[in-house]
Amino acid sequence: MLTIANRMQRIQPFYVMELLARAKKLEAAGRPIIHMEIGEPDFITPQPIIQAGKAALSRGETHYTAALGLPQLRQAISEYYQKRFSVDIAAKRIIITPGASGALQLVLSILINPGEGVLMADPGYPCNRHFVELVGGKPIGIAVDESNNYQLTTELVSQHWNSDCRAVLLASPSNPTGTLMPIDELRKLHQFLQQQGGILIVDEIYQELIYDQSPTTALSIADDIFIINSFSKYFGMTGWRLGWLVAPEEAIEPIDRLAQNIFLAASTLSQHAALAAFSEETTEILEQRREIFGQRRDYLFTALKEIGFSIPVKPQGAFYLYTGCQPFTENSSQFANQLLETAGVAITPGRDFGSNKPEQHLRFAYTTHLEKLEQGIEQLQQFIHHNQ
Amino acid sequence: MLTIANRMQRIQPFYVMELLARAKKLEAAGRPIIHMEIGEPDFITPQPIIQAGKAALSRGETHYTAALGLPQLRQAISEYYQKRFSVDIAAKRIIITPGASGALQLVLSILINPGEGVLMADPGYPCNRHFVELVGGKPIGIAVDESNNYQLTTELVSQHWNSDCRAVLLASPSNPTGTLMPIDELRKLHQFLQQQGGILIVDEIYQELIYDQSPTTALSIADDIFIINSFSKYFGMTGWRLGWLVAPEEAIEPIDRLAQNIFLAASTLSQHAALAAFSEETTEILEQRREIFGQRRDYLFTALKEIGFSIPVKPQGAFYLYTGCQPFTENSSQFANQLLETAGVAITPGRDFGSNKPEQHLRFAYTTHLEKLEQGIEQLQQFIHHNQ
Repeated sequence: MLTIANRMQRIQPFYVMELLARAKKLEAAGRPIIHMEIGEPDFITPQPIIQAGKAALSRGETHYTAALGLPQLRQAISEYYQKRFSVDIAAKRIIITPGASGALQLVLSILINPGEGVLMADPGYPCNRHFVELVGGKPIGIAVDESNNYQLTTELVSQHWNSDCRAVLLASPSNPTGTLMPIDELRKLHQFLQQQGGILIVDEIYQELIYDQSPTTALSIADDIFIINSFSKYFGMTGWRLGWLVAPEEAIEPIDRLAQNIFLAASTLSQHAALAAFSEETTEILEQRREIFGQRRDYLFTALKEIGFSIPVKPQGAFYLYTGCQPFTENSSQFANQLLETAGVAITPGRDFGSNKPEQHLRFAYTTHLEKLEQGIEQLQQFIHHNQ
Repeated sequence: MLTIANRMQRIQPFYVMELLARAKKLEAAGRPIIHMEIGEPDFITPQPIIQAGKAALSRGETHYTAALGLPQLRQAISEYYQKRFSVDIAAKRIIITPGASGALQLVLSILINPGEGVLMADPGYPCNRHFVELVGGKPIGIAVDESNNYQLTTELVSQHWNSDCRAVLLASPSNPTGTLMPIDELRKLHQFLQQQGGILIVDEIYQELIYDQSPTTALSIADDIFIINSFSKYFGMTGWRLGWLVAPEEAIEPIDRLAQNIFLAASTLSQHAALAAFSEETTEILEQRREIFGQRRDYLFTALKEIGFSIPVKPQGAFYLYTGCQPFTENSSQFANQLLETAGVAITPGRDFGSNKPEQHLRFAYTTHLEKLEQGIEQLQQFIHHNQ
């Protein structure tokens, strides 16, 4: 019998993977399934990026890059921050990582000692707490709800902060709720953390996927905030596994040292391809997609509310709706399973996102065509009708 | 002032990176440098693999794969084990990872509790001990030398084993010494560990890069050995960041759970490209390269010995020669720096590989053309001549 390390008791699977596996089985048996469970754009990577990848292959760009990344990509991201957000971020502060996952691992590994607390919103992205567990830290989930726009507030953080706490990790827009942290509230939180000697880490991987306003960055507030970002979501490069990290200058040396050891570097090919991610041609494609996501959100938000799901705050970003399902069930996991089996619609139950009333919540991802969403809504309605 | 986590005090940089940076600076200033420091094949990825990558891009293969990897790639590796090594390894026991680095991280994270010891050879691959540090484990370096072929023996392991020890991590062929662990010795070590309830982890990333005999795998011994492997070295895919792990069946579930959380998956494109790594066409290219590496080894081994470097055991594999430099210096780091500055030859000092007499050793990598190696040897000879 193999003995598995204790930390693994605290690392949960993505429960939705089981549901996804079941959905694929049903599909393999000829049953059409509408996928609203997947946190990945349905679009393939924009053609200019694909072409840049092919060109890099033709040039034989197959060797390692430096651990911190391709200098010209770090420079391109620096210019993107200047152009898009009017913030000056020196290229040397930008570190290219194997996905945002790589960035999260680097930040938490260089900052968190065993036993130290990291505060985060519950519901939130499940991997966050597992990355904290991996370094022996203590993930502290703080329940958020409609009263605080499903985001941490300085007040909430100060209520939970103690001398063992080391950092706050938040996402704006958030997964699963799609809500934003207002920049003024972020500024207050940053001030509070400065006073406490705490660190602010902001996940901005859905930064550009917002629908009613212009995107912002926490980098406009201060230089000592750690920023996680990614080419996966807005840039449509999930399978390429490429992200980046912006860190204060004094953190670069330990990050470099760790990245050399645990990653060597991010994929060379992905880095060369990503150089095309900021071109005008690509931006045009991405902005069209953003509009499509916005239309889907508007449709799905209205449709789910009409059915009776509770969405007290209209999500401003990402591609998720996190809904209260109490009118229909007190057991969202069971509901999701039955919905899949009976109606062929796949959604993600709340328990993947924390322990704050997960059984009263369901996440709908609008990562599929509008017609599919419409069809899914119809099947969902029929399912609810038959079960009442 | 940013406070960095304590573990980072125990995570060293690759010292050779400084030397490499200096070498690049000299090159940028117009000085030709002969690179014998780099642990990466000089060849670009074989064309059939590059073409498979391009074809995958044309098909739009840009979404995530399952966390454990593309089923057809896992199957292809299973067939490779059957065909090449006559061992039956079910595809479900094969996990595709972001480089061998990803495989190492998964294995150590699911197995090692804080405080538990992992035994390894010194000199050895430096990242190994840092991966152990990352999970709070205790890397225990065991000095090896010519008397044991620069490999652990059951006797050495049993001398260092205690109740806090959990695993032995060894590499065959080894980096930096290029020596093999004889399969009979490996079998004895496995038996010893079974008695102790310890785990055997074998790094086989240089498995196919051996020059005087047929390659073997520790999988021929037992099913409870963890195997680390990679597409980087023999298959020439360093920049693609792709490796694999073979694990006992009961370890797959926790590995899947952790991989979902910390990697999501390895690069989709790299996985599709790697499907071409086992084709006859690719194998032909790789075998030609293996012959070239063998010629380089033979040349460099003889040349360095003639100069007076000590290489008591002829390395059978990898692309390194780990040499005693006592006839010339008691400070290999200084020697390497001066050799670069004065003679334009870059090599890696021993201190990157542990604390077993590092200042008396230098690693020469034969990852450059034979003519370059010859030129490097000439410049090395002149350097030594002028300094005596």
